[in-house]
Amino acid sequence: MEKKLSIISFSGDFDKLTAVFTLATGAAAVGYEVNIFFTFWGLDAIKEKQGRSFLGKSPLTKAFGFLMGGLKVAPVSRFNFWGISPKIFRSLMRKNNVATLEELVEYAKVLGVNLYACEMAMHILGLKREDFIPEVKDVLGVATFLKLADDGQTLFI
Amino acid sequence: MEKKLSIISFSGDFDKLTAVFTLATGAAAVGYEVNIFFTFWGLDAIKEKQGRSFLGKSPLTKAFGFLMGGLKVAPVSRFNFWGISPKIFRSLMRKNNVATLEELVEYAKVLGVNLYACEMAMHILGLKREDFIPEVKDVLGVATFLKLADDGQTLFI
Amino acid sequence: MEKKLSIISFSGDFDKLTAVFTLATGAAAVGYEVNIFFTFWGLDAIKEKQGRSFLGKSPLTKAFGFLMGGLKVAPVSRFNFWGISPKIFRSLMRKNNVATLEELVEYAKVLGVNLYACEMAMHILGLKREDFIPEVKDVLGVATFLKLADDGQTLFI
Repeated sequence: MEKKLSIISFSGDFDKLTAVFTLATGAAAVGYEVNIFFTFWGLDAIKEKQGRSFLGKSPLTKAFGFLMGGLKVAPVSRFNFWGISPKIFRSLMRKNNVATLEELVEYAKVLGVNLYACEMAMHILGLKREDFIPEVKDVLGVATFLKLADDGQTLFI
Repeated sequence: MEKKLSIISFSGDFDKLTAVFTLATGAAAVGYEVNIFFTFWGLDAIKEKQGRSFLGKSPLTKAFGFLMGGLKVAPVSRFNFWGISPKIFRSLMRKNNVATLEELVEYAKVLGVNLYACEMAMHILGLKREDFIPEVKDVLGVATFLKLADDGQTLFI
Repeated sequence: MEKKLSIISFSGDFDKLTAVFTLATGAAAVGYEVNIFFTFWGLDAIKEKQGRSFLGKSPLTKAFGFLMGGLKVAPVSRFNFWGISPKIFRSLMRKNNVATLEELVEYAKVLGVNLYACEMAMHILGLKREDFIPEVKDVLGVATFLKLADDGQTLFI
């Protein structure tokens, strides 16, 4: 049977998203079926329109649209230093020939990693299917995700 | 065999506790056995006396009693803005017909989700069995929890 | 078959590292095979030279060497209060006869917990095999770790 790795990608932090996509691409490269379920701040990683914007209809959802500005402005979970730190990481990754976060996301698409968006978190944050990249396979609830993740390893990041 | 989901609920953040209870109730609703093992800041979610208080005997444990004020004052892990953000989340959840954290906790009780408290963390923080809601099934150590979680999925949140 | 617990230790926070080693030693004590894969900030826990130092060759990696000062200066994920909080935790753990983080790390070594370092994170942060304690069994990539973790429980902390 095919091995399976499922990841609930909750965090919007640069370093944790890097961990999500490193694990996902590493597993997919050795033949695993990989499912990523983006929820809450993690939805940031699959937004079509990267950069700070004002998606959503109400002032509140607009505020979250601004705060969640996508991969380019994702902060580091520790020692963020007003956004200097993700830039340092990117430069270290390039210098040391490690794939950057944006490259990892591209690899994940090429390797056929399944990307899913969490229905409930989309409701809370006022996001719609059209706000995400076309590679997002489906919008799911918890029960459907658990069924997909069944019989494999599941991580919450 | 019955499917099983076990969650180690470590964080005291509003958004992460929402994830814990969304996953727990979603899984229980489709017939999973669900075990939540509350430890460290997560113990906040099952305190009987919600609101900031001074549980514990020493000045140090009293301080933690004050800082861990329960669900009503749980901060958001990101963009907390001095406590405005959890209020915004609550209002967005209500407006968009998503269950609030308090409602999810009630659902969990009704759906028979098993709630456990971590013995070691209780020792550190100076908390006793009586400080928790009566629905807490037992106080456990790591080994007993691992036995319960065996043959299912386990998440650390 | 022997039960297995694998932990991806990503965080450098005092409380989360305490959770990693409590789970690891608790599982090893009841006969589990335990693997810990240290990555990113988690690498802090297995550095040979504890205390703030300037490992790494470039100014950037030197800066991370300083910021990641090992177990003695690891902050708490919440209510850190400029480093007072980990000291309070240590004193509470001692007073309440709970093993401190340093003691847990020693137990882990004695109990034969397998310690691994993440190759990619070492590249990014400019760390070498010699920078870690001799108990570190190997330097691994994601695919090898997944193979080790196969057929057991895996947690991301």
